Amino acid sequence: MRERLYELLTEYYDEMVEIRRYLHENPEVSYHEVNTANYIATYQKALGHEVRTNVGGNGVVAKLHGGKPGKTIALRADFDALAIDEQNDVPYKSKKSGVMHACGHDGHTATLLVLAKALNQIKDELSGTIVFIHQHAEELAPGGAIAMIEDGCLEGVDVIYGTHLWSTEPLGSFMTKPGPLMAAADALALTVKGRGGHGSEPHLTKDAIVISSQFVINLQQLVARRVSPISPAVVSIGRFEAINPFNVIADQVEMEGTVRTFDEATRSLLEIEVEKVLAASCALTGADYEYAYKRGYPAVINHEQQTALTIEVAANVPGIDKIHICEPLMGGEDFAYYLQHVPGSFFFTGAKNPSWTEVYPHHHPKFDIDERALLNAAKSLGAITLKEME
Amino acid sequence: MRERLYELLTEYYDEMVEIRRYLHENPEVSYHEVNTANYIATYQKALGHEVRTNVGGNGVVAKLHGGKPGKTIALRADFDALAIDEQNDVPYKSKKSGVMHACGHDGHTATLLVLAKALNQIKDELSGTIVFIHQHAEELAPGGAIAMIEDGCLEGVDVIYGTHLWSTEPLGSFMTKPGPLMAAADALALTVKGRGGHGSEPHLTKDAIVISSQFVINLQQLVARRVSPISPAVVSIGRFEAINPFNVIADQVEMEGTVRTFDEATRSLLEIEVEKVLAASCALTGADYEYAYKRGYPAVINHEQQTALTIEVAANVPGIDKIHICEPLMGGEDFAYYLQHVPGSFFFTGAKNPSWTEVYPHHHPKFDIDERALLNAAKSLGAITLKEME
Amino acid sequence: MRERLYELLTEYYDEMVEIRRYLHENPEVSYHEVNTANYIATYQKALGHEVRTNVGGNGVVAKLHGGKPGKTIALRADFDALAIDEQNDVPYKSKKSGVMHACGHDGHTATLLVLAKALNQIKDELSGTIVFIHQHAEELAPGGAIAMIEDGCLEGVDVIYGTHLWSTEPLGSFMTKPGPLMAAADALALTVKGRGGHGSEPHLTKDAIVISSQFVINLQQLVARRVSPISPAVVSIGRFEAINPFNVIADQVEMEGTVRTFDEATRSLLEIEVEKVLAASCALTGADYEYAYKRGYPAVINHEQQTALTIEVAANVPGIDKIHICEPLMGGEDFAYYLQHVPGSFFFTGAKNPSWTEVYPHHHPKFDIDERALLNAAKSLGAITLKEME
Amino acid sequence: MRERLYELLTEYYDEMVEIRRYLHENPEVSYHEVNTANYIATYQKALGHEVRTNVGGNGVVAKLHGGKPGKTIALRADFDALAIDEQNDVPYKSKKSGVMHACGHDGHTATLLVLAKALNQIKDELSGTIVFIHQHAEELAPGGAIAMIEDGCLEGVDVIYGTHLWSTEPLGSFMTKPGPLMAAADALALTVKGRGGHGSEPHLTKDAIVISSQFVINLQQLVARRVSPISPAVVSIGRFEAINPFNVIADQVEMEGTVRTFDEATRSLLEIEVEKVLAASCALTGADYEYAYKRGYPAVINHEQQTALTIEVAANVPGIDKIHICEPLMGGEDFAYYLQHVPGSFFFTGAKNPSWTEVYPHHHPKFDIDERALLNAAKSLGAITLKEME
Repeated sequence: MRERLYELLTEYYDEMVEIRRYLHENPEVSYHEVNTANYIATYQKALGHEVRTNVGGNGVVAKLHGGKPGKTIALRADFDALAIDEQNDVPYKSKKSGVMHACGHDGHTATLLVLAKALNQIKDELSGTIVFIHQHAEELAPGGAIAMIEDGCLEGVDVIYGTHLWSTEPLGSFMTKPGPLMAAADALALTVKGRGGHGSEPHLTKDAIVISSQFVINLQQLVARRVSPISPAVVSIGRFEAINPFNVIADQVEMEGTVRTFDEATRSLLEIEVEKVLAASCALTGADYEYAYKRGYPAVINHEQQTALTIEVAANVPGIDKIHICEPLMGGEDFAYYLQHVPGSFFFTGAKNPSWTEVYPHHHPKFDIDERALLNAAKSLGAITLKEME
Repeated sequence: MRERLYELLTEYYDEMVEIRRYLHENPEVSYHEVNTANYIATYQKALGHEVRTNVGGNGVVAKLHGGKPGKTIALRADFDALAIDEQNDVPYKSKKSGVMHACGHDGHTATLLVLAKALNQIKDELSGTIVFIHQHAEELAPGGAIAMIEDGCLEGVDVIYGTHLWSTEPLGSFMTKPGPLMAAADALALTVKGRGGHGSEPHLTKDAIVISSQFVINLQQLVARRVSPISPAVVSIGRFEAINPFNVIADQVEMEGTVRTFDEATRSLLEIEVEKVLAASCALTGADYEYAYKRGYPAVINHEQQTALTIEVAANVPGIDKIHICEPLMGGEDFAYYLQHVPGSFFFTGAKNPSWTEVYPHHHPKFDIDERALLNAAKSLGAITLKEME
Repeated sequence: MRERLYELLTEYYDEMVEIRRYLHENPEVSYHEVNTANYIATYQKALGHEVRTNVGGNGVVAKLHGGKPGKTIALRADFDALAIDEQNDVPYKSKKSGVMHACGHDGHTATLLVLAKALNQIKDELSGTIVFIHQHAEELAPGGAIAMIEDGCLEGVDVIYGTHLWSTEPLGSFMTKPGPLMAAADALALTVKGRGGHGSEPHLTKDAIVISSQFVINLQQLVARRVSPISPAVVSIGRFEAINPFNVIADQVEMEGTVRTFDEATRSLLEIEVEKVLAASCALTGADYEYAYKRGYPAVINHEQQTALTIEVAANVPGIDKIHICEPLMGGEDFAYYLQHVPGSFFFTGAKNPSWTEVYPHHHPKFDIDERALLNAAKSLGAITLKEME
Repeated sequence: MRERLYELLTEYYDEMVEIRRYLHENPEVSYHEVNTANYIATYQKALGHEVRTNVGGNGVVAKLHGGKPGKTIALRADFDALAIDEQNDVPYKSKKSGVMHACGHDGHTATLLVLAKALNQIKDELSGTIVFIHQHAEELAPGGAIAMIEDGCLEGVDVIYGTHLWSTEPLGSFMTKPGPLMAAADALALTVKGRGGHGSEPHLTKDAIVISSQFVINLQQLVARRVSPISPAVVSIGRFEAINPFNVIADQVEMEGTVRTFDEATRSLLEIEVEKVLAASCALTGADYEYAYKRGYPAVINHEQQTALTIEVAANVPGIDKIHICEPLMGGEDFAYYLQHVPGSFFFTGAKNPSWTEVYPHHHPKFDIDERALLNAAKSLGAITLKEME
């Protein structure tokens, strides 16, 4: 049956490319993906699948019932684009100025639609139900996943899988790891409120620049000494703004930063500890502060068993020639939420054309993928689905 | 003779006020005081004094030769205004939008002109020569003093005196001190050039915010431990600018600050040591930096003997009812340069009206003076001149 | 054959305990294990094994040739004790005051000797050669492993295994992980040489306490920002010694500390970076320093394939009821050196008696083990050996 | 009368030297100056002066009533020695091993006794009363001054003067300044109580060395930014003790230090602020601390008018050829207490022999003075006394 699926997918490869290019030319930014959602729903309905639209927003959920009883397996693809102006000179270039599929979600959607079509062809042999979760708004917190889950997209689902095309990983590579795969990415917004004054009279002031510098230095102790050495964490301040004439002492400093972690305990610890450092830095002079810790997506934590299954399956997928057990990535993904509810695993499908001399990272205006990766992704997801049905 | 001078000055008080108000209505900013210079030169010429114009720019130097031989005594008044929009509602309000005599230089000039007229009346009895130095551009570095000195205004001068009307010191007060009176006020302009990156990958960057925070903290050691505890000094950073998104590590930080000192040794030490702190802070990561130490006016160092003379004289000037030996002020004045060439002393003449409930500091759009202070200033400078002739 | 081996080991369990207790009563500290080495050599010779003594010091290597051709498999046990005064009140308490087997090496040796005896019983069926590496001096750098390797103990060896009885892990547990298992543990010895003076005259000194405090604070940046967030590392200063009267400024500070890492790149980076931080901290005042980075054992890096084999085998060892894939441990082990030369894996055998209410860690004067762990260890090592021979 | 006094003192110079050398050979440490007190009392009684012994301890107060009415003028000399082993090879070397007059108090006492004798010779002409305050225990807090004042030594006193022979100032120099002359010298005793642990597990500890380093660095902000730039202050930590093995994280750090100030406001501010810095440094980790601020002698604040008088008088004392208006000294003196009760002034009498190539500071085992300074000191104190009687 697996071989049959591979044949069908190979046969439909041109359609996969066509769909991807259509979506690429017609991108829609997060939370505004109305036409894309319609396109997806129409396609799934045409296959005769049970379709629910407006799930948690613009989300679309389609169901394919196999001919035999079995598990309910969810496959997820996201479909929103970014507010980026495409700089590629390709026939399928974005037709919308300032909007671009610069992260590969067009490919994810094309992959999942055509995989649905192929699985539909062999539905009588399938044991169980397949749920196609077409998710909107992955790029912008709070993200579509959490809303679709609240709206029931995981009801009855036993296990979930998803993949991300990856432009910096070579075509043919299957990259994943059990446990923490992608980081929780949170944001800090801080204000130190001292008391300004003349540069020559520090004793009459609460120098917000000195206080904030102290804060930045003290902050280094959190990762170095408060967090367990085997729990990866990063705390970075990216904005430090105190714009005054040279001879003035700063009244106020505004800072922004990010916190990256892989486990909830460390994340919660840092949420508390960063404020403690800020409070202690202000306490020296009695300055005030404002503190906002804004939680982004949680860490993507791959389940052990399901990840082992994907690795085992991928090793035998034609086109996949490299299994890469990677280190955790510090980037974020709202696939994380699905894994908090049901077992599952997320993996990366290499999409770097071997002949490229320059590779553009995701979210770059020149980002692109080797479209053959779509076929690899479809085969991998399909084979994993079949394996789950055994 | 002193009594006679006091009488004349009292008699001419109305003219003093008139001149001050004329100048107040017609202010000219530093280096653009052409009409004011003409006004001054015309007045001094009318008195029959030897007048040199365009001295080191818009400076005017007038000489009155006494009837008897003696020392050459210089008296200095500055005459530039500020780029400030006057907010006072007075009959003599500035007629020029955005320009204002907000530091009292109009009063200084009126005082010196009328004192010249009065001294002229008793010139036969005077022993020696009086040089009236009308200086332009005190408010803006490099300042008029240094240019006028280079252009010869101190040639043959034995001793120099000057005063500043002071809006926060009560009318009737004579304020000065021997030795350091006003600070050297220098400026720092610094750039830390690290290597930016993503907030989640600090190990691939040279975080300019962390480096600069380290610099700000290390800087505190200079005043606390490198400078002698009995040598006042201040090092303040007023601008710290690194504006990036929250999840970016800063490539670069720009800083500006000020250094205040009272002696050349400490000033030169700090010029070197601030750079050493910056270099050491950058050395941790191999970051680069740019360092500019911009010298402003040096410290005003009153000569002991001449200051003692002014205090002794002032104690007997009618109208002066308080001798205030003050602590050094952290502000700057280019009178400092004259005192590097010839002995002399600088003092403050209280100009706060006793009935004022709110007092505006110098350079404030609502700054004003009690005009009776002009008479006190004229009497003090005149009596000091006569004392020097004894 | 595996079942037969388990039966033999069970049968010999009493002897195992007897040997362990004999060694426990007669401990010898690192590099002085002459009698223990003799005891081991005598035992192995009695089994008819080929024995080499004084290997790299007090090391003993014994070889058992199986009846069939095959791989050469090394098993290692260490046999040195510690300079600790035993506080247990047990019949087999150390007879030597101030010396104690407080880390379980007595158990390791008893396990390996009796396993050798059991394997000897089935030698005709064994495919290949078994090398029993009895290692001296594990507790004290540079350690016996490096010397025994230089003296040829790994010649011809294809693969190596070893275990450590672990007093804080429950009896029945088999604990390991692929990749980094135990840390490289290095030592820092630092001196900051400033210039002392009177507490009231900081400007005439180079305050070694301030410099060293700056160093300690700057040090936090290394783990927080210089090392990759996914590479565990610790830098700690444990000694900071500057003993002077209250009114004296310190001439010198002596510090000691430790650096823990799991990969050579990070280790080498920190060796360089810690000195850079020290140099930059001293550069502020032009102080001098002395820097010594003393490398201890490298990290124990378990080979993937061999570790997978041990896990697979252990899952079926009678007595082992828990496979614990642990996080890396920050402690060190010179088993690390063997793994730099041949493939292999190291694991922990749980030795905590389930009824104990208080558990003493390794190197504690009240340290003890549940002796049944010896049997588990022997079975695990034996079964792994047999698996390698398949 | 002044000339007569100078003649008498010159005549008695040999006796002054003799007394000084006797005291130098027979030194007694602070609070144990029984024989010295007896010697002084005997001498003063022999002059017929009214003598009180055991004033506030070993203090001796003698009174000479002049023949005419007038003010009561106190002159103070201290007489305790130090626990230092003399290393000079002189005929009058200390006969007591480990005890030495290494600060010149022997000279102070000889000066005052012989001045008493000379004044006694002209007593009929004197207007008023002279109180000779021979003070014990200047070297060791809480000091003799405070006890003698409590015991009434200043009763009826209108004004007080004192001098210190100064080995680093040339013979012939008279050194003083109005206002702050010598610093308040306070002591800090601090303990940071963290939570210790293993060097590889910082996250389980509260690292007392890191906390204390943070404290030391934060401390620098107090002088640099909290204290007015024109108010001299020093905060130094001299002891920092955390002695642990290299791989242990410190449980506790003990620190000692000193705080020097010249005015009570700054002193009280720092007493509060140092604790705030300590508390804020501990707050980061929730560590505890112990804080003791031990006040030593207050600052010696010379009264303006009396200091002016001493300068005026000294300018005409034969033997005094240099009036040196110095910067404040950071050392302490319990003469400070007298000046808190009555007007007065303290000055230094140069005692450096012009031919010395090496000069040893006070409290050095090779400390010595040019004895001719005793005559200068006696003449100065005598002339000041006579001036006060005018």
